[in-house]
Amino acid sequence: MKPIKVGLLGIGTVGSGVFHVLQRNQQEIMRRAGRGIEITMIAARNTERARKICGDTIQVVAQASDVVNNPEIDIVVELIGGYETARELVLQAIANGKHVVTANKALLAIHGNEIFKAAQEKGVMVAFEAAVAGGIPIIKALREGLTANRIEWIAGIINGTTNFILSEMRDKGLSFQEVLKQAQELGYAEADPTFDIEGVDAAHKATIMASIAYGIPMQFDKAYVEGITQLEAVDIQFAEELGYRIKLLGIAKRVAEGVELRVHPTLVPAKRLIANVEGAMNAVLVQSDAVGTTLYYGKGAGSEPTASSVIADLVDVTRLATADPEHRVPHLAFQPDAISNLPILPIEEVTTSYYLRMHVEDRPGVLADVTRILADLTISIDAMLQKEPGDGATRTDIIILTHQTKEKNIIAAIEKIEQLATVSGKVTKLRLEELN
Amino acid sequence: MKPIKVGLLGIGTVGSGVFHVLQRNQQEIMRRAGRGIEITMIAARNTERARKICGDTIQVVAQASDVVNNPEIDIVVELIGGYETARELVLQAIANGKHVVTANKALLAIHGNEIFKAAQEKGVMVAFEAAVAGGIPIIKALREGLTANRIEWIAGIINGTTNFILSEMRDKGLSFQEVLKQAQELGYAEADPTFDIEGVDAAHKATIMASIAYGIPMQFDKAYVEGITQLEAVDIQFAEELGYRIKLLGIAKRVAEGVELRVHPTLVPAKRLIANVEGAMNAVLVQSDAVGTTLYYGKGAGSEPTASSVIADLVDVTRLATADPEHRVPHLAFQPDAISNLPILPIEEVTTSYYLRMHVEDRPGVLADVTRILADLTISIDAMLQKEPGDGATRTDIIILTHQTKEKNIIAAIEKIEQLATVSGKVTKLRLEELN
Repeated sequence: MKPIKVGLLGIGTVGSGVFHVLQRNQQEIMRRAGRGIEITMIAARNTERARKICGDTIQVVAQASDVVNNPEIDIVVELIGGYETARELVLQAIANGKHVVTANKALLAIHGNEIFKAAQEKGVMVAFEAAVAGGIPIIKALREGLTANRIEWIAGIINGTTNFILSEMRDKGLSFQEVLKQAQELGYAEADPTFDIEGVDAAHKATIMASIAYGIPMQFDKAYVEGITQLEAVDIQFAEELGYRIKLLGIAKRVAEGVELRVHPTLVPAKRLIANVEGAMNAVLVQSDAVGTTLYYGKGAGSEPTASSVIADLVDVTRLATADPEHRVPHLAFQPDAISNLPILPIEEVTTSYYLRMHVEDRPGVLADVTRILADLTISIDAMLQKEPGDGATRTDIIILTHQTKEKNIIAAIEKIEQLATVSGKVTKLRLEELN
Repeated sequence: MKPIKVGLLGIGTVGSGVFHVLQRNQQEIMRRAGRGIEITMIAARNTERARKICGDTIQVVAQASDVVNNPEIDIVVELIGGYETARELVLQAIANGKHVVTANKALLAIHGNEIFKAAQEKGVMVAFEAAVAGGIPIIKALREGLTANRIEWIAGIINGTTNFILSEMRDKGLSFQEVLKQAQELGYAEADPTFDIEGVDAAHKATIMASIAYGIPMQFDKAYVEGITQLEAVDIQFAEELGYRIKLLGIAKRVAEGVELRVHPTLVPAKRLIANVEGAMNAVLVQSDAVGTTLYYGKGAGSEPTASSVIADLVDVTRLATADPEHRVPHLAFQPDAISNLPILPIEEVTTSYYLRMHVEDRPGVLADVTRILADLTISIDAMLQKEPGDGATRTDIIILTHQTKEKNIIAAIEKIEQLATVSGKVTKLRLEELN
């Protein structure tokens, strides 16, 4: 059979990885796919730089639309990132009857519904394994490996930059700002790290996972997003003393009233495997009713790890390119006519456990006031840590771990605790998940 | 579309799991598969017991051949285990044009080549996600998720019984025999645990993984198989002191000369995630050239975890049942005409590191003799531990960790060391993998 023809949009970090891996492993990939997969055209802003990577045998163009509109191309691989231009190019490729492979989580989290609808109508595939957790085949696991299951929750370390920062803060006892600076110098964080450190990137990925786990449309605007920029080294240390690690988790959870979709720093028991995922690595923990707990671990970013997922998609699409659409795995795991309208809950309605740290006067009665406020709101206490005040100090820290409660109860409790005359400043609140 | 009709052979632990999960999650599964999946016939030795599980609406028969020869059945699910009867039934089902789903690793490791050939000729699918690592979708990950990669090695904890025993031996400092007895009482080990504790079950699974990783025929007879029955508690303890845990690993590794395929107790650095997989859990670590390290973790056995994989296969087969065979994922990951003849190496040609423990006289010169023997065979030492002799004792233990070498060198060294007058008894040899 003649090779399938692929056009690349963008040949930066991931694009060059795709090019090199396809070239290096072409024999092995062809033995698997049963058909050659050939990059025949590349669009790059800097065509000269692109030619240095791919040589003279491949057509390099400056206009992405030249690839998208080229009738010779079977599959368009979108690796330019961003929302708007990518959206237009992907929709144009679909309109032209081309299959699309993309690593663009922002694009899918925001415009996924429109893109999948267009693809469905046109009978083409949009594959996006590389959009979540880089090289880990987590989309395939959720969408195909766990089809028997009712998925209860997913909790993922799905942003390597923030996991690296948290690992370093813990290991070296440094502040967020100090580690961020180091991470930028080492290339583990971008010059503008906002999307990573504010949790937006993780929320894009969690949005995609929630959709394929529960068969709901992409609803990034309903996700609760809290990054790690406010996290203090002292809380990492207190958490450690209580037997927990702090990880930035993307969480999707099915509850009676709907779906929780949230990204925030989270205390996790130190003995859990996922609590021991360090540095820039990613891991996704899935709890489902038949299989129980499964975990998927690997590199969440980087040139060749991400290329690994892009090429896996290329092989899948190649196998099914000429097949009846009914034989294909649906974009959101569930058939398009079986998508559900389960609501995504506002954060106030989310149920979890909490870590509270408050700075108090070291005198009798303070703790009684705090525990009475919690009890009045039916919040029960799981563990408590009261630090000895330093020499000559009259104030100290109280740390409380609560059992599960709704966020709105904790918000009400914190408001009252902060009004106590014996408590100074703000109460620090972190969420805690047992993940068992 | 009308539902696809499934016949079950066997309704024991896994079969009843398949029945219950399909029933409980039928809506969710249909929303994913786009078509109903209906068990319409069950073969069971004890038909009365079977009817108690599945009720009156499903036809229960005593003869498995009645299912296999029923023209109404689209997919046969083989869950009876064993080699010979299962082989005949599966081949008959294929001859009758039915797709087959099986959880039977022994069957595939021994008769897989014959079965896949028959399926290929008949244009039907044989799916076997449940045959390796129970509920973990590792076959899908290797066969579809990592298609871009040249897989360097796979190391798996793929037998829950032995991992449970090893965890207990370490935690409680008990002997193999003591823990085995407890495991049997708790139902974690079978009445006849031979296949588990001798490593045969793990070797079946490693054989299957090696085939799909490297596109080679199933060659169980060439696998090196060593179980945990000879493992002494003292070695678990010494390994711990040196920073290692002992796990029964199934290993498939591609080297210049061919493929290593081996199952044996293995020292693994304690800081590796896989070293912390405890109890009856399974995990598979895969090292490949593009994505690097990925790890897959979950329950490796049990009714519903295994059913999860069987049903995932049913959904896959349902989607592709009427598709052109060329659109399907090949049985052994590589196209049938692209299977390779890479040889599986005999254990003497395998390269790894070693843990050696010897009982020696506590006097000068002993260590010099041992190290000279190792040096003469170009085996270099990575670490050493010499225990202080107990009160009044004149003999002690020396533990040596070597760098990588070929097994034949270690065999030669041990032969010479055992001849030293200062060394008493046998040298204990365990293999060590850094897994990095």
